[in-house]
Amino acid sequence: MPKISLKGEQMPASPIRKLTPFADKAKLEGKKVYHLNIGQPDIETPQGMLDAIHKSNFKVWAYTASEGTLSYRQKLSEYYNKLGYNITPQNIIVTTGGSEAITIAMMTCLNPGDEVIIPEPFYANYNGFACQSDIVVKPILSYIENGFALPAIADFEKLITEKTKAIIICNPNNPTGYLYSKEELEELKKLCLKHDLYLFSDEAYREFCYDGREFVSPMHLEGLDENVIVMDTVSKRYSACGARLGCLITKNEAVLKTALKFAQARLSPGMLEQIAGEAAVDTPDSYFEAVNKEYTYRRDVLVNALNKMEGVYCPNPGGAFYVVARFPIDNADKFCQWMLEEFSHDNQTVMMAPATGFYSTNGAGSNEVRMAYVLNGNDLQNAMICLEKALVEYSGRTVESDKLKVESL
Amino acid sequence: MPKISLKGEQMPASPIRKLTPFADKAKLEGKKVYHLNIGQPDIETPQGMLDAIHKSNFKVWAYTASEGTLSYRQKLSEYYNKLGYNITPQNIIVTTGGSEAITIAMMTCLNPGDEVIIPEPFYANYNGFACQSDIVVKPILSYIENGFALPAIADFEKLITEKTKAIIICNPNNPTGYLYSKEELEELKKLCLKHDLYLFSDEAYREFCYDGREFVSPMHLEGLDENVIVMDTVSKRYSACGARLGCLITKNEAVLKTALKFAQARLSPGMLEQIAGEAAVDTPDSYFEAVNKEYTYRRDVLVNALNKMEGVYCPNPGGAFYVVARFPIDNADKFCQWMLEEFSHDNQTVMMAPATGFYSTNGAGSNEVRMAYVLNGNDLQNAMICLEKALVEYSGRTVESDKLKVESL
Repeated sequence: MPKISLKGEQMPASPIRKLTPFADKAKLEGKKVYHLNIGQPDIETPQGMLDAIHKSNFKVWAYTASEGTLSYRQKLSEYYNKLGYNITPQNIIVTTGGSEAITIAMMTCLNPGDEVIIPEPFYANYNGFACQSDIVVKPILSYIENGFALPAIADFEKLITEKTKAIIICNPNNPTGYLYSKEELEELKKLCLKHDLYLFSDEAYREFCYDGREFVSPMHLEGLDENVIVMDTVSKRYSACGARLGCLITKNEAVLKTALKFAQARLSPGMLEQIAGEAAVDTPDSYFEAVNKEYTYRRDVLVNALNKMEGVYCPNPGGAFYVVARFPIDNADKFCQWMLEEFSHDNQTVMMAPATGFYSTNGAGSNEVRMAYVLNGNDLQNAMICLEKALVEYSGRTVESDKLKVESL
Repeated sequence: MPKISLKGEQMPASPIRKLTPFADKAKLEGKKVYHLNIGQPDIETPQGMLDAIHKSNFKVWAYTASEGTLSYRQKLSEYYNKLGYNITPQNIIVTTGGSEAITIAMMTCLNPGDEVIIPEPFYANYNGFACQSDIVVKPILSYIENGFALPAIADFEKLITEKTKAIIICNPNNPTGYLYSKEELEELKKLCLKHDLYLFSDEAYREFCYDGREFVSPMHLEGLDENVIVMDTVSKRYSACGARLGCLITKNEAVLKTALKFAQARLSPGMLEQIAGEAAVDTPDSYFEAVNKEYTYRRDVLVNALNKMEGVYCPNPGGAFYVVARFPIDNADKFCQWMLEEFSHDNQTVMMAPATGFYSTNGAGSNEVRMAYVLNGNDLQNAMICLEKALVEYSGRTVESDKLKVESL
């Protein structure tokens, strides 16, 4: 029997999806499972996108240009230029989700063995994409104590070698929700220019900034045009994860020309999605206002409930729809699995993503979990009630609970 | 300025699309261009698929399971089991086009530096996909004289080394249209079992077999379950290239488990496409009968016209919708570009794909072109009139034309 490749063996399973069999089993047993494990929002897709699908009128479902239709790229550039990116349609290559923008950027810019520095915890699939291209991820720890702010530039400098080719930031951050400031990005700019590094900017959560905070992109920084590659997607922006429609944006001509060759090999992004994506750009501001209000409310529900639990700490993030919280537990992987396999409260339980999958450093994040606040406030409150009970009941609890103390009196 | 990767430099541009700027220019100059260069059929997508899109009724355009929805995989397995593949939904991973099925299969089975043997001329993007994974393509020449039949097994044996991990066949073949026989596949089976090789079977054109010929898949061969990976797509089957919906099928459990990890990293195939794909399986036989009748007619128009031209040779293929023809010219790349840049007849010209892009051996196919018969009979006839004139007029003609002789009298 022929063998699997080494890459195939080393490829990590998704930390977000690996507990799915346990969740499926819990559901078969009749438990209600609150899914806080995955960034699949329950927010409705804008009606304009759905209308565009229903009204679509073509006889042949044809390939488009490999870089995406001119018409969609024109519309997209309007969207980005409103944000001040100052681009043309020629700066955009439409991709199959943000995922493909990341893999194409990696293949375009990094050789096998080259290194990319990523503040951790980070979006787990960067590990998988790096593995696909035999690229080495050099993690740099950020800390829950300061809300996972950008690590010190001196810490980046320590990691830079001859092999370092790029830095990835995800802003606002998945999984931490941290929103990088202009000052932090300016620091990164200096570092990238000094060491001639690419700055990959994953901006999937751009539209989700709370409490009046402002989003800043490396595209806004002067003198960094040759270094910046934005990796974007409509998945979260318009709650259209299943559309698999993203893009890569850069002003670096050599990158564009090379990325196009990778795009040509896979022929074309989805045709119908580009029609819907074009309509999406006309989504009224009121949609985003309502969505951001809802997410702010949910974040507050979650963060307040978590910080009231004994021994739990959760920073209050400025963007995206995730939090990473620290629990008084021995092992987040064990705890999350136990919650699905053994725990229930009123026949309900919660599925979360152990944070270990978002760290590349061995052992880091072993008492942290990521939660996506993609459920309505009521479900979130129920989920938090379950979680609080579970943390008290769990045998691997590391801090004695007052409740346990009271009960044992 | 940061550098492009070596892989990015080495990545081949699409031979099918590289002449596009010249075609665009010809159109700007007011010329009508007959596109025989790309396998984008003009055949209408089945109404059932389009209806499924228009009737789709969801509020959140959500991710699906990474391996595809169970419901689509169930329906797909019905389709494959009618063909005698004897599979379950668990043998299928839904992919973003056939392209992704190929890249996932390569990453799953081959290490960097490993070798894959492919009869040439072959689908040009195999080169690109191999480049992406640092896999070495070992081409094995097939010959226009016998219609591009499977090369002798002894020729395969000569190429096999410690590094050889797989053979790719595309059946019916793109670009040659050759339909492999059961006997040829049995030969390949023995070879794969003897040397413990994967057999990647690209079956994008399965439904297009002419003159009553029967399609045979390696899935039909006994004892080869651990070796066969089918790479499929709805692109050509239902004239739905822009749907980007394909799948990978295998009975090898280790391959399935590993391929799923790559599928998980990119989260999900398109959601709406899977709804349309499910409807597509109910496409009536009458659709395929009409389409095959039309393609048979077109092939006959093309092959007859080509073989009547002085110095031209074109085999009569048993499947797909391509032919590779030999022209009396010095250089197919030059000729195809010249036809767009300089030639016109009644203000019309033809865009074709130089066959060199489908060969990996340097210099091979330099007087051959690939043509896709994806236009209606009338357009094809006009295209053939243009081509005949062009071949007479072209300065790099290698065989003196009787017409030229007559004119010079």
